[in-house]
Amino acid sequence: MIQMTLIQIDNYGPWTVTPTPRTESDLQILQSTLYAELQKQFAAKEGIVFFTRFDNMLAITNNISLEDHARIQRSIHNRFPITVSMGIGTAETPYEAQKKATIALQSNGGAQSETRKEILCADGIVDKENSFVQVAHIDINGITDTLTDIEPAYDTSFIVNKVQHYLMKKLIDEGALLFFIGGDNFMSPCNGMTLEDIERVIDEVKAETNIDLKAGVGQSVTPEGATDLADIALEEIRAGHERQVYLMTKKK
Amino acid sequence: MIQMTLIQIDNYGPWTVTPTPRTESDLQILQSTLYAELQKQFAAKEGIVFFTRFDNMLAITNNISLEDHARIQRSIHNRFPITVSMGIGTAETPYEAQKKATIALQSNGGAQSETRKEILCADGIVDKENSFVQVAHIDINGITDTLTDIEPAYDTSFIVNKVQHYLMKKLIDEGALLFFIGGDNFMSPCNGMTLEDIERVIDEVKAETNIDLKAGVGQSVTPEGATDLADIALEEIRAGHERQVYLMTKKK
Amino acid sequence: MIQMTLIQIDNYGPWTVTPTPRTESDLQILQSTLYAELQKQFAAKEGIVFFTRFDNMLAITNNISLEDHARIQRSIHNRFPITVSMGIGTAETPYEAQKKATIALQSNGGAQSETRKEILCADGIVDKENSFVQVAHIDINGITDTLTDIEPAYDTSFIVNKVQHYLMKKLIDEGALLFFIGGDNFMSPCNGMTLEDIERVIDEVKAETNIDLKAGVGQSVTPEGATDLADIALEEIRAGHERQVYLMTKKK
Amino acid sequence: MIQMTLIQIDNYGPWTVTPTPRTESDLQILQSTLYAELQKQFAAKEGIVFFTRFDNMLAITNNISLEDHARIQRSIHNRFPITVSMGIGTAETPYEAQKKATIALQSNGGAQSETRKEILCADGIVDKENSFVQVAHIDINGITDTLTDIEPAYDTSFIVNKVQHYLMKKLIDEGALLFFIGGDNFMSPCNGMTLEDIERVIDEVKAETNIDLKAGVGQSVTPEGATDLADIALEEIRAGHERQVYLMTKKK
Repeated sequence: MIQMTLIQIDNYGPWTVTPTPRTESDLQILQSTLYAELQKQFAAKEGIVFFTRFDNMLAITNNISLEDHARIQRSIHNRFPITVSMGIGTAETPYEAQKKATIALQSNGGAQSETRKEILCADGIVDKENSFVQVAHIDINGITDTLTDIEPAYDTSFIVNKVQHYLMKKLIDEGALLFFIGGDNFMSPCNGMTLEDIERVIDEVKAETNIDLKAGVGQSVTPEGATDLADIALEEIRAGHERQVYLMTKKK
Repeated sequence: MIQMTLIQIDNYGPWTVTPTPRTESDLQILQSTLYAELQKQFAAKEGIVFFTRFDNMLAITNNISLEDHARIQRSIHNRFPITVSMGIGTAETPYEAQKKATIALQSNGGAQSETRKEILCADGIVDKENSFVQVAHIDINGITDTLTDIEPAYDTSFIVNKVQHYLMKKLIDEGALLFFIGGDNFMSPCNGMTLEDIERVIDEVKAETNIDLKAGVGQSVTPEGATDLADIALEEIRAGHERQVYLMTKKK
Repeated sequence: MIQMTLIQIDNYGPWTVTPTPRTESDLQILQSTLYAELQKQFAAKEGIVFFTRFDNMLAITNNISLEDHARIQRSIHNRFPITVSMGIGTAETPYEAQKKATIALQSNGGAQSETRKEILCADGIVDKENSFVQVAHIDINGITDTLTDIEPAYDTSFIVNKVQHYLMKKLIDEGALLFFIGGDNFMSPCNGMTLEDIERVIDEVKAETNIDLKAGVGQSVTPEGATDLADIALEEIRAGHERQVYLMTKKK
Repeated sequence: MIQMTLIQIDNYGPWTVTPTPRTESDLQILQSTLYAELQKQFAAKEGIVFFTRFDNMLAITNNISLEDHARIQRSIHNRFPITVSMGIGTAETPYEAQKKATIALQSNGGAQSETRKEILCADGIVDKENSFVQVAHIDINGITDTLTDIEPAYDTSFIVNKVQHYLMKKLIDEGALLFFIGGDNFMSPCNGMTLEDIERVIDEVKAETNIDLKAGVGQSVTPEGATDLADIALEEIRAGHERQVYLMTKKK
């Protein structure tokens, strides 16, 4: 079972234009700082947050309790001009988990409600025995030589976005999610997918974009454990020890 | 003329896996913090930075001198474990400007060169008389009601990414760029495009994605001036005072 | 038993002037950011850090394991241009605990050693059964009316520093420490002192400086538990419910 | 003429305990982050901020306009849960400048007023022709060998605080200020003092504390120019090229 948390800034849209539109650079700083803060706090509990849309963030939060979530909310309202609500969901697949997390939050009021504030709600919490996280760390083969060092920066960025778009499209059918994590790197929470499933997705994206991808896959009881192993698995592929998709797992 | 700066972390890929892969959450914090820092420093000079790929960022930097850029580089190496190189380009269109900025930087060494470090180079600097920035602030009509409050968070994120992909594809042909700035918001540096051009792009994306967009357009001599006006123009549309695309400009 | 950690930036002095003196504002930003980061990470484990000299910080770390400390060190080297070493000590009094923490660290090399790097060492770790933290939150009575709103800002700052100096001088004889925490507030880890001891110190400082102080005292098994209760105790005094020194304690 | 700005968090005391006392670690993070932010923003204009009491900060702000100050205030209220008011003063000595800055601010309402918010006021602004900043960077001779590496960390901290106290006491009579900037370092804005004056103060503090000090003095038209030169002057003394007090100046 994977546990996912939807983190939503309360009534953010209206705030950004009250009383007049706030300076865009300030909003960018606020959003990236908030993301960094949430990452720090969830990471201290071995979770991981994806910036997603910045005003809505999704996190893998296996082994992080309701009380831990509440503590993080409190820390945010003590240091930021905004508050955040959180909904937690658990399921066999990441897609289902985020869906349940969203429904839990939506049932407590809208994103631009003037009254909903700092809600914390959960469809469920994964217990230690059933905790399982699988993530794939996917990147583009040889991007520095083939793109970064020879193409205009924006063109490279365009291709990375295109790959993201096709990966998202394919993975959602498998119940898996995909998040851009910078450079040419993507992280896919993908409980339930086999290595063959992942390989097939990569091949299909290659057929549509002509871009070669590889994926290190990690499995563990905690989000950090899984992402660590995925990173190491990817290094193994880079080092030529493994093929396009490689799995590392940790029983515990 | 628009001036754009490509900011590239020096030899970042290798650093992230030396001696072993660094914890993903730490990298996420590092990247978002670095972006926030660069945004603060360029914003203090009325520029604006887009996070782009995080290890490669593009900024609009009209009226920001080489000396200002050097000062920002120094501040980064004094406070971060990495250094950044910068290339500056100027042109009539944003696409051309980032291309020249990239070529300037590429000619000084690769992104993963072990010897290239903290390069600052410029194909040109825009003088005050010729400085002109046009940006469009584009968002999705009524996203809170039609998506955020009723669809799973990831599905909304997927649609936003899809819109981004199609906008990028259309705008690049016009010499314009597109950056996601959070929520359902995009910022497009688009010197040279007319309001009709922008409207046409929006209509084409609507045809392909069935998503309604609107665009506030700002023109000024500084990046901040242009983004401020684009935000206000967008508010005018939201308030029903204007149609789908609206321009505000500031002579000075 | 109280557990204290000495956090020391490795070889910091030489770094600040290599190759030439680094800009003072950058160093100030680095130091305050590092302090904020360490505070965030220790606070996530219910500890508390005092900025002390910024290059040397003291923290109360009951219930924070060696592994937690190591994780924090790793996070710092992944995001800062410097590394930190840590020494841990435990004792009946805070003074003794920091002394043991210092000796542990000193025995591993000097603060400006070129070879000592990211050392983690402990004279001991407090187990849960013996964990006990007592802190006093001390502030100046009515400072806003008598100083801040009528005296030059620097004069008020001078008086606060003077109070700090006398408090440090008195408390050290009791085995207690004192840290300035902003405004007119001080935090004193003071395991072993009775309320009468604290009252006597406050009276003595009053005799020498003519400044009236009050102290909320908190006792708990965790640093955060103790500082929370000290804050609440201070509020009780402010509200007039209690005298100059008031204790709140939590069995658990 | 030196220009100083008093930066005061609006109604901060009441905020920290509303509705109940906020977690101390959160307040520490907020305060140090706010200081870092203000330092970044004033430094971008070549000013320097001292943390002072954290809720009240003093800055040297020669060449920084009212408009620049207003921009910084806006950026703070867009990203923090609190707002700041600022008062600006100019005079021949730093002491007089901060006094005028304080009076300007006090005349607009108290620090804990519920109505005073984001005030910006100035007794005067220094023009470029009359701008002059002198600062002394003072440190303790050989502290690593004589204290840090052999004494308990708190004892060293106590001695540094004692030196600060005596330096503050002596310098205030000369119209100069003194701020602790970390480690064993102090920064003294000291327009109007001669090198002999500074040497005498250092000798007097030595007589009272038995601690040897040295001072690099910098003079320039900007705060950053002066602190840079003071740092370099201190390096010259450390290198044995100069005596206990050494001056570097920049005409421009």
